Amino acid sequence: MKSIIISIGDEVLIGQVVNTNAAWLGKELLDLGIPALRTVTIPDDENEILKEFKRSIKDADVIVVTGGLGPTHDDITVRTVAKFFKSKFVLNQKVLKHVRSIFARRNIPMPAANIGQALVPDVARVLENKTGTAPGLLIDKEGKVFCVMPGVPYEMKYISQTGLFPYLEKKYKKKITRVISQKTLHTIGIGESVLAEKIGDISKIVRKGRGFEVKLAFLPSNYEVRLRITATAKTRQTAKKLIAEAEKLLRKKAGNYIYSSDESPIEKTVGIMLKKRDLTIAVAESCTGGLIASKLTDIGGSADYVMDAIVAYSNEAKRRLLGVKAKTLKAYGAVSKKVAEEMASGIRRRSKTDIGISVTGIAGPTGARPGKPIGYVWIGYSDSNVTFAQDFIFTKDRLRNKDIMAKMALEIVRQQLKINN
Amino acid sequence: MKSIIISIGDEVLIGQVVNTNAAWLGKELLDLGIPALRTVTIPDDENEILKEFKRSIKDADVIVVTGGLGPTHDDITVRTVAKFFKSKFVLNQKVLKHVRSIFARRNIPMPAANIGQALVPDVARVLENKTGTAPGLLIDKEGKVFCVMPGVPYEMKYISQTGLFPYLEKKYKKKITRVISQKTLHTIGIGESVLAEKIGDISKIVRKGRGFEVKLAFLPSNYEVRLRITATAKTRQTAKKLIAEAEKLLRKKAGNYIYSSDESPIEKTVGIMLKKRDLTIAVAESCTGGLIASKLTDIGGSADYVMDAIVAYSNEAKRRLLGVKAKTLKAYGAVSKKVAEEMASGIRRRSKTDIGISVTGIAGPTGARPGKPIGYVWIGYSDSNVTFAQDFIFTKDRLRNKDIMAKMALEIVRQQLKINN
Repeated sequence: MKSIIISIGDEVLIGQVVNTNAAWLGKELLDLGIPALRTVTIPDDENEILKEFKRSIKDADVIVVTGGLGPTHDDITVRTVAKFFKSKFVLNQKVLKHVRSIFARRNIPMPAANIGQALVPDVARVLENKTGTAPGLLIDKEGKVFCVMPGVPYEMKYISQTGLFPYLEKKYKKKITRVISQKTLHTIGIGESVLAEKIGDISKIVRKGRGFEVKLAFLPSNYEVRLRITATAKTRQTAKKLIAEAEKLLRKKAGNYIYSSDESPIEKTVGIMLKKRDLTIAVAESCTGGLIASKLTDIGGSADYVMDAIVAYSNEAKRRLLGVKAKTLKAYGAVSKKVAEEMASGIRRRSKTDIGISVTGIAGPTGARPGKPIGYVWIGYSDSNVTFAQDFIFTKDRLRNKDIMAKMALEIVRQQLKINN
Repeated sequence: MKSIIISIGDEVLIGQVVNTNAAWLGKELLDLGIPALRTVTIPDDENEILKEFKRSIKDADVIVVTGGLGPTHDDITVRTVAKFFKSKFVLNQKVLKHVRSIFARRNIPMPAANIGQALVPDVARVLENKTGTAPGLLIDKEGKVFCVMPGVPYEMKYISQTGLFPYLEKKYKKKITRVISQKTLHTIGIGESVLAEKIGDISKIVRKGRGFEVKLAFLPSNYEVRLRITATAKTRQTAKKLIAEAEKLLRKKAGNYIYSSDESPIEKTVGIMLKKRDLTIAVAESCTGGLIASKLTDIGGSADYVMDAIVAYSNEAKRRLLGVKAKTLKAYGAVSKKVAEEMASGIRRRSKTDIGISVTGIAGPTGARPGKPIGYVWIGYSDSNVTFAQDFIFTKDRLRNKDIMAKMALEIVRQQLKINN
């Protein structure tokens, strides 16, 4: 069982939109036991679309197409699908009623262009889209399933989860005899090849036998490395067992660096640890500019443990809002161990939290000083027992620096919470 | 002149990594006059890689391949390239020296696996990679250019900009006789079809003639719509002129909604306006949790106009840090017009800035109250002349809400700066 994901749209091809749809569909189809053989992005061009449909329907069992279903003139996917299947259009009353109701709810008159979204090729069944105007279309023909969905990510996800995936699960229940399971261990603060050396001999992890295989991949990006274990087996149970064995071996060698094994970001791991121990945290940021607070509050329920966060760029704000001493700033400069420590303990005391963290550094692209290059940062930590700061040098890129500095601050919290457990 | 972008790696195919490389390359290659015919993502599988190489070299002039060049066992791209071109491996001393120097600089011994990165197919020339260990490889054969680069985005970008693009520009200088130019106008706070109605008749914008064509695309996502103008012409000059004409017509109809025409985010537009007028801003956030501050400080030089930012989740923090009155909180609740106004004026007074903005709402997934559903938000604005707040209802998704609420707050600042100009 193989799938192919086709994304249609000049905007994806020329990089105006990053293709997150293909990533999401790839993961979900793998979980369903119908892994993607490839993903392809093509322009809003009838010939190219037809060519790709033709090739894909030969190579795969399931073809998932996204994009080009909007109400405007540049959206040609549906009429190309109709052409490909030599199908006529019919006006679908249910879709028309739904589109009308969306505009009624918003209290705006329906533009004429949206009526076109209710015209459906007669070969297709309609997959309901409660999140937007364009419905999904599913064509089941000669043993192949062909599905077309809008390119807007949340609409695509809604139609997949409520229409496409249940259909595929039901149809292919008995046909799927090879199961692929995956698990990814996320590490931070260690390079790819150093991590590989720490893990050492992988012959007990990566292996192949009759009806099963275990693979391991190293996926590095901006001071993080993910370790992805893939197990192929005849049953889900065996695959899960193979993965658990590989994970155990990896954790024995590099467990200390692993902050997550379920794709959750470090702010979630830290959030769960804080909540479980009934601890609160406050954040004092300089060069990360609110990113640590924003990451922490990305997690639902974070109001339970995130108290205040203060972004204090200037020395004046560091004094006024965080209680950093004027003489400390004068003696050591804003990017220093002592200032990071005073920021962390200052926010902790003022916000009356259990933990305070702080970041003060040079995100770039300007602001370097002698001995303090771009990417240089002090991260401070304070709880009722200990206050300290660590320094790092990261990159020359402002956004990469903000990201890894914020993550490293959260990693320091995680390490402390582990020690104090 | 056509290009094809091939991304290799299970991690991309199964959605563990979002393919930002293809987006970036697509845009850059378009600018070079070698637009992408398609982008394809395939697994770390020799057969699939060979099949795709074969198909691509038939269809395009330039093939750009990324991924699978790391030092670990799962990276098979280079040996597959050697197989495809029937090429032998040679040890490249320059690359070896570079890889050694990287480890020396980091003060860590070089793992044996990294030596392999200096083995290069003899058909290829090496493109230097100062940002990592794996070099780029360029093969120029039978009029086609074939380039392989690492999948790490900043390494790929470095090699493209310093090696691949200069090579392509030089080689194809005289061959490129058709130029495609693009410009995208970003709007916020207006739906796709309402925007289309405002723009009305597009026959003066979208047109085709001898040797030229102008296209217009509507690209919606989460309460934003981008208008992309594409002009094809014989010279860059003509293409630019066609785009300027189309932009003028669009601005006449929908200019008020357009916050950017150079791909820059709203925080950059607002930042430029603030800097130009020598104004400062401070931010008081509740449900956006630091995201407005983080967006504003994503822009280099923002320290000149962003003063403090305070994330005050609790009522207690709203009183202590922003001076919101206890009786206001009691009478109206935290998510109210009056509290948003007091937050905005409070942060402005305390931080002594020209402008204060605030957000108080319900990001979700929990926290809805009677009359205040998830996605409900009050955004406050305060300067020395006026203090007001506006309410909106966005989505049921926490992260989408944080994002659009933060952007809408910045849009309100932009609208006020425009009025006050």
